[in-house]
Amino acid sequence: MSGTLYGVGLGPGDPELLTMKAHRLISGAGVLAYPALAGGESLARSIASEFIPNTAREIVMDVPMTVERAPAQAAYDKGAAAIAAELQKGEDVVCLCEGDPFFYGSFMYLFARLATDYQVEIVPGVTSMTACAGAIGMPLAARNEVLTVIPGPLAAAEMEERIVSSDSVVIMKVGRHLGKIRAILERLGLLERASYVERATLGNERRMPLADAPAPAPYFSMILVTKGADPWL
Amino acid sequence: MSGTLYGVGLGPGDPELLTMKAHRLISGAGVLAYPALAGGESLARSIASEFIPNTAREIVMDVPMTVERAPAQAAYDKGAAAIAAELQKGEDVVCLCEGDPFFYGSFMYLFARLATDYQVEIVPGVTSMTACAGAIGMPLAARNEVLTVIPGPLAAAEMEERIVSSDSVVIMKVGRHLGKIRAILERLGLLERASYVERATLGNERRMPLADAPAPAPYFSMILVTKGADPWL
Repeated sequence: MSGTLYGVGLGPGDPELLTMKAHRLISGAGVLAYPALAGGESLARSIASEFIPNTAREIVMDVPMTVERAPAQAAYDKGAAAIAAELQKGEDVVCLCEGDPFFYGSFMYLFARLATDYQVEIVPGVTSMTACAGAIGMPLAARNEVLTVIPGPLAAAEMEERIVSSDSVVIMKVGRHLGKIRAILERLGLLERASYVERATLGNERRMPLADAPAPAPYFSMILVTKGADPWL
Repeated sequence: MSGTLYGVGLGPGDPELLTMKAHRLISGAGVLAYPALAGGESLARSIASEFIPNTAREIVMDVPMTVERAPAQAAYDKGAAAIAAELQKGEDVVCLCEGDPFFYGSFMYLFARLATDYQVEIVPGVTSMTACAGAIGMPLAARNEVLTVIPGPLAAAEMEERIVSSDSVVIMKVGRHLGKIRAILERLGLLERASYVERATLGNERRMPLADAPAPAPYFSMILVTKGADPWL
């Protein structure tokens, strides 16, 4: 009988924001898998590190951060094959996922490769989106408000249109797009309603009005915009 | 010195999806607060019940589910006053919040009343949104896709426009709006791309293609729509 692949959300960075289920699965794991920047660190592993048993075998997927997709896809092909080999032996595999596995996460690449042939269970995690809202003390959405989540690389014209038509906006993966986004919000008169957060819940978290945020931003940074005046009262 | 108010996300329903931080705060709490349907159950308390100390004092906010907002706001006024009295005595208060406190959650009503005068810390939780995506095995959003979160009560015309212009759509609080939503998705040719989930991660979770979902739906139900064909490969 084949093992089960667990896609386990780790939350935004503070290890105490792991769920109890994630903690149980990781601390009991025989085989772990996680992505790492090619030749570098794995943020996922670092979040979970204090809970990883010494005895666990680890499948590291070195994912190159290139614009072309083929090299990253090859890394997931290789990782999926290594995971499949363990599952076929009847071993369960716990895959470590930053945030939530299905919210802009790379676990979907493994899921697409393995879910047809193997049992896959998703353990949802706290997203950086709500962690950022908590860090700056800004409710994301209330009542019948529409919330739009926009990736930072989106083209400026489309981004502007999305921001105009939403009550609340979360812009993820800000990174080198900070200047573009700030210019859009300034043009729309929304700069004072925009907050900036980087590395939420990690030791080096920073948060400030977007107007004060220095470029360039790290990849793990986010901008939140609310347009209503105290909509939650 | 005043105590701290903790707004603690409990996740979607499975007690094991509490974060370790939520577990620590609840199991060590001297004073708890939570909303309940007037004269009825508190879902928040039921999620956390196995971790609540016998010695904890409990502030119950009976929130009437009426269309007018004044009765609910009066309940939060009264709850906020009771919480403030504890904080003034130097007691910390742990407020139990379904899902995440700042993602369509009622904690924002307490936050608006208390955050100016008291220390408030938000502990983010797993949202029902990502829990539902995990339950049905559907990644919510990938790469540069735009994700739109729409409350079910939104007017049909606006809802249709939002669905048309998004890559991925989550419709929350479906409840008695199921028929309206299904008709819109059918008209747009998106019915086969829509999934329905109710009470995700609870013992009585149900999930199915939206086409099969029986009306009326409970309040805690959700519809997920993805438009891309395997966008995550």
